[in-house]
Amino acid sequence: MSVAKEFEAANAEYAASFDKGGLQLPPQRKVAVIACMDARLDPARALGLEEGDAHVIRNAGGRVSDAIRSVVISQQLLGTREIVIVHHTDCGMLLFTDEVIRGKIRTELGQNADHVAFLPFGDLRQSVLDDIKLLKENPLVLDVPVTGYLYEVESGRIVKVE
Amino acid sequence: MSVAKEFEAANAEYAASFDKGGLQLPPQRKVAVIACMDARLDPARALGLEEGDAHVIRNAGGRVSDAIRSVVISQQLLGTREIVIVHHTDCGMLLFTDEVIRGKIRTELGQNADHVAFLPFGDLRQSVLDDIKLLKENPLVLDVPVTGYLYEVESGRIVKVE
Repeated sequence: MSVAKEFEAANAEYAASFDKGGLQLPPQRKVAVIACMDARLDPARALGLEEGDAHVIRNAGGRVSDAIRSVVISQQLLGTREIVIVHHTDCGMLLFTDEVIRGKIRTELGQNADHVAFLPFGDLRQSVLDDIKLLKENPLVLDVPVTGYLYEVESGRIVKVE
Repeated sequence: MSVAKEFEAANAEYAASFDKGGLQLPPQRKVAVIACMDARLDPARALGLEEGDAHVIRNAGGRVSDAIRSVVISQQLLGTREIVIVHHTDCGMLLFTDEVIRGKIRTELGQNADHVAFLPFGDLRQSVLDDIKLLKENPLVLDVPVTGYLYEVESGRIVKVE
């Protein structure tokens, strides 16, 4: 069975007891979360988010440079005024370089991916500081509070990076 | 109080009963979900995901063209072999055009955003079909099962698009 079919079955249960049909489009808590796509991180459970609370932007690494379009829409059209970044321990982005993944794609897919910046990093703490700085310096992003955390996949804890 | 402080308090509770410290990096169910950042959509609850199950990539609209870097990393380095796209009713991406948001940014921020494609759409169903096609045609993306859904924010249901 495909995972999609399993999702349909799980969703039927979710919808059966669904009582949140009246929520508004703009996030109630006026915050955008930028987090890694990692399977072990559930931003809603780990940060106490209910449906309707927050925009959640996720990509490989939780990298800001790959989230700017979404942040601008979140702020300009839907009124969010705070940003929280969540990277995490044991991140896959620590395990490769652009050269490694481009080489793999060339060998296994016969394709050239030299034009893609995959945004890996060598230092977790620095990756959060770099991404806070990218937000602060981007002229399309409003000057709002930005807080960065490392989520510990071992303990479930978030630790503030400063 | 900043929302970040509230997240810290909620996380302390989450971590206090955390028992998932032994999960592996590669997603157990070998699937990547591409979903909108919308606050009303919680992919984990709506699709029955537990920590460790799936990569969750989210951006404004759940657009594929803004998710390719993450999909390639998910497949090439972390072994996912299925993709599920989730767009949703009442999406903010239906409410503007590139011209509108670029104009707003020029007027309110005094900045030029003409170089950013914000990826709005006029038709929900078509946005899912377009994004399935983008995945199928991208030479950096493996030929894996792709299923597209519309999540109904009114009912909590997902409806397959085909």
